[in-house]
Amino acid sequence: MSLLMHTLHVELGERSYPIYIGRDILSDPSLLSRHIRGRQVALVSNDTVAPLYGDAVRAALGDRDLVTDIVLPDGEQYKTLDTLNHIFDRLLACGHNRSTTLVALGGGVVGDVCGFAAACYQRGVDFVQVPTTLLAQVDSSVGGKTAVNHPLGKNMIGAFYQPQAVLIDTATLHSLPAREFAAGLAEVVKYGLICDAPFYDWLQDNMPRLLAREEAALAEAIERSCASKATVVAADEREGGIRAILNLGHTFGHAIETAQGYGTWLHGEAVAAGTVLALRLSARRGAISEADVEGFITLLQSMKLPVVPPEDMDAEQFLTLMARDKKVLDGRLRLVLLSAIGQAEVVDDVSEAQLRELFAA
Amino acid sequence: MSLLMHTLHVELGERSYPIYIGRDILSDPSLLSRHIRGRQVALVSNDTVAPLYGDAVRAALGDRDLVTDIVLPDGEQYKTLDTLNHIFDRLLACGHNRSTTLVALGGGVVGDVCGFAAACYQRGVDFVQVPTTLLAQVDSSVGGKTAVNHPLGKNMIGAFYQPQAVLIDTATLHSLPAREFAAGLAEVVKYGLICDAPFYDWLQDNMPRLLAREEAALAEAIERSCASKATVVAADEREGGIRAILNLGHTFGHAIETAQGYGTWLHGEAVAAGTVLALRLSARRGAISEADVEGFITLLQSMKLPVVPPEDMDAEQFLTLMARDKKVLDGRLRLVLLSAIGQAEVVDDVSEAQLRELFAA
Repeated sequence: MSLLMHTLHVELGERSYPIYIGRDILSDPSLLSRHIRGRQVALVSNDTVAPLYGDAVRAALGDRDLVTDIVLPDGEQYKTLDTLNHIFDRLLACGHNRSTTLVALGGGVVGDVCGFAAACYQRGVDFVQVPTTLLAQVDSSVGGKTAVNHPLGKNMIGAFYQPQAVLIDTATLHSLPAREFAAGLAEVVKYGLICDAPFYDWLQDNMPRLLAREEAALAEAIERSCASKATVVAADEREGGIRAILNLGHTFGHAIETAQGYGTWLHGEAVAAGTVLALRLSARRGAISEADVEGFITLLQSMKLPVVPPEDMDAEQFLTLMARDKKVLDGRLRLVLLSAIGQAEVVDDVSEAQLRELFAA
Repeated sequence: MSLLMHTLHVELGERSYPIYIGRDILSDPSLLSRHIRGRQVALVSNDTVAPLYGDAVRAALGDRDLVTDIVLPDGEQYKTLDTLNHIFDRLLACGHNRSTTLVALGGGVVGDVCGFAAACYQRGVDFVQVPTTLLAQVDSSVGGKTAVNHPLGKNMIGAFYQPQAVLIDTATLHSLPAREFAAGLAEVVKYGLICDAPFYDWLQDNMPRLLAREEAALAEAIERSCASKATVVAADEREGGIRAILNLGHTFGHAIETAQGYGTWLHGEAVAAGTVLALRLSARRGAISEADVEGFITLLQSMKLPVVPPEDMDAEQFLTLMARDKKVLDGRLRLVLLSAIGQAEVVDDVSEAQLRELFAA
């Protein structure tokens, strides 16, 4: 067991669960087994991550009646109902019953698909998140949002379904490609922008340490991100209100992802460019300064993240795709903007004309 | 509004909802609208029921921003992920957002698929059940079990997801084919067997009135069935314990349905033959008498329901299919049996040898 393991808690009554953060905790048998109630396990991963960590997790599972490996192809383009059905086929063919536990070992796609499979299989079985990308560790593995994509919109089919536990092994980040690592950092920066101004300052000072993947800086950034997420989720599990602020930059970002085809831009990349748009709009409304926007763009550039949308996207395409956003309510588009650095708000009074101006600029 | 409308309540805290039972209530605008919060509705039905009642329900919906008709092919063989995906396609193409309400107008298949679609669409939207078959009225529309089938097992993919309301219009039963009507009565009789001995006696006395579809008898039978179901569901929403007794005859019945191909035997027919097996096993264990079993068989025969499994099914096939039952726990098959007429129990001590003897007899 890592001596430096930190534990956070997502407080959701009978659906509460711990988040463990530490180095090499993925292979700790006591930790994983503590959250697996039955004798059956399905280890769901992808063809990139399974060869790296599959053996370690399988060893940590200990003695079971049934352990089934389900290896998905890697990539956002496989976050589909077809992939979900493949998981069901395997679970049924191998004889998994309602007491089984699914373990999601991988990035956001594996976690979202595996979590949704757990939500639906025999009307709900246990699952544990073992996220191996920064994006999954600080965002998608915490909070119980599970989903698959539909050709007409991202995450359109899914469930709110909480895991039994989240195991974040920081050692896995050292095998992460630079592009994916940077995309994950975009979500880390988001927490600073929406609810933690001191953390945003810290990030501006410590970005070089994070980009160098210094262990202590990584652990700090992950813990503060997860703590923010846990607080927001505990306050609003099913996104009736405050939870929507976690979607800063996402309405624009999802439009980019859908337009480009899933997997072309990484989620974090689309969110980065989308957040620039959200901050520009916030500045036009007078909530933050142009200098704030420029400071954010400089930070993204140091992370080698995109700061403008794809060249081939026009205002029309944005408006069409954004009209399908899940936050649209009775025909009104709702957007997450900043009311200050470190403070977000959901607004529904941005006109189509204002959006056209934004895209034209 | 019907003068004779009865209202029951399923008590599930913030997920509580009413069940309305009455003649011609389907076309009552105030009743349906009371449970639709947003400006968008999708009316999900099938190609048998939509022509009969679609116009009346659409009229009762009143003035909306968006009403989309989604008509599914009729039959258990269409209770699939493909059909589910068709619903998602239509909802997204027509621009339904998270404030939409799905209205399920039809039998158990429509209710189960539409309810599961509501559970998953944008991670959950409202839905209202308007069941038009006896089976759906007394069983599947109440209690929040939603699902689709998988080639390897019935109802294997689904969710516990409660509707906003259930509207049971007894007038719809007059258009129901005799075979489907009888299959629904099998589930009515089930409530007598598992938890309401006086009702079982009443059913034996009043079966001719029910088979003649006498209004007063129908209303009485539906109300007592729904009341039993509501009580059991309120005590155990997610089937951690007592709710399993609602599955009397279903472990055998599901095996029959899977073996024959969905839609060959009606669900209620398979349950009828399955319940005979469950009662025979209960009698072998000394819990009820052979005369009780014979009395039940005589009742089923008066309803023209099957009392033995399909001729082409052998013990091996039953055992293989039953091993996939959702009630199997850590390798042990759990069966619902009677401890007396009007009282059920879940047992896990029936041996394979005992089952082989049962199928051989």
